Amino acid sequence: MAFVQIRAAKQGDCGDILRLIRELAEYEKLSDQVKISEEALRADGFGENPFYHCLVAEILPAPGELQGPCIVGYGLYYFIYSTWKGRNIYLEDIYVMPEYRGQGIGSKIIKKVAEVALDHGCSQFRLAVLEWNKRAMDLYKTLGAQDLTQAEGWRAFRFEGEAMRKLAGR
Amino acid sequence: MAFVQIRAAKQGDCGDILRLIRELAEYEKLSDQVKISEEALRADGFGENPFYHCLVAEILPAPGELQGPCIVGYGLYYFIYSTWKGRNIYLEDIYVMPEYRGQGIGSKIIKKVAEVALDHGCSQFRLAVLEWNKRAMDLYKTLGAQDLTQAEGWRAFRFEGEAMRKLAGR
Repeated sequence: MAFVQIRAAKQGDCGDILRLIRELAEYEKLSDQVKISEEALRADGFGENPFYHCLVAEILPAPGELQGPCIVGYGLYYFIYSTWKGRNIYLEDIYVMPEYRGQGIGSKIIKKVAEVALDHGCSQFRLAVLEWNKRAMDLYKTLGAQDLTQAEGWRAFRFEGEAMRKLAGR
Repeated sequence: MAFVQIRAAKQGDCGDILRLIRELAEYEKLSDQVKISEEALRADGFGENPFYHCLVAEILPAPGELQGPCIVGYGLYYFIYSTWKGRNIYLEDIYVMPEYRGQGIGSKIIKKVAEVALDHGCSQFRLAVLEWNKRAMDLYKTLGAQDLTQAEGWRAFRFEGEAMRKLAGR
């Protein structure tokens, strides 16, 4: 039987990661917003002070199988700073390819993020989810997450493009 | 007349910043969640790879006034990573003391964040706001921000404490 391994991404995985970033954005019906390139992912995640960290879920072939290992999911996170709790983690993306869902791969990625967080002295990690994505929301709740938009009323705002340039007077 | 200056925080400002962090959490009715110390703020924001950056709004006395400069607001941000747009800024906190509101100090902080973002090649910056805080939401919208919870349905989730330790099997 094939075996799923969750491991830290290597620079050579960026092509696969970009493929999955695009799949996730498509699933979220927001694929027009993806402007990132493989080159940017390679440059930004693997230097001395990487801007992000990434876990990949890789299917390892059973002994005797001819197929090579195959990346079927990822979790991309970075360190943030809470003025209440100090250093924390934000899980920007988590994704598992549709044909590999229902096998606990998403949970494995989330568990690994929790381990990384505790290893780095972080008392929490945050993420965002689209409200129609009931499957993901149910999973996060089952694993113990709190819906802060529901519990405390937090809403996400973003400044970008023209509005940002206008603010900066440029 | 007094003059308001928005400047980068110095390590010696951390006592004032912590005072304002506590005031903001009280205003948000979530002050029991503040666990941070002045020592942590001093250690985390001013090394070679700071975990956060902070702007302070300082009232400078008019010539001849005896009072010293006084910090009346702050904006605390850090760099994050969008898998759609690359490097970006997250404005974790923005706060102006009640008696100094209505003078455009909040807008000045936001404008400065937009400048910093553009200077660092960031195409956007994000923040979160409590839905009952109409005054803040109106300000952000007036300045051109988009409410992503409303527009796209994003909800904020958080794993913490016992749930996180259980996930990590500790």
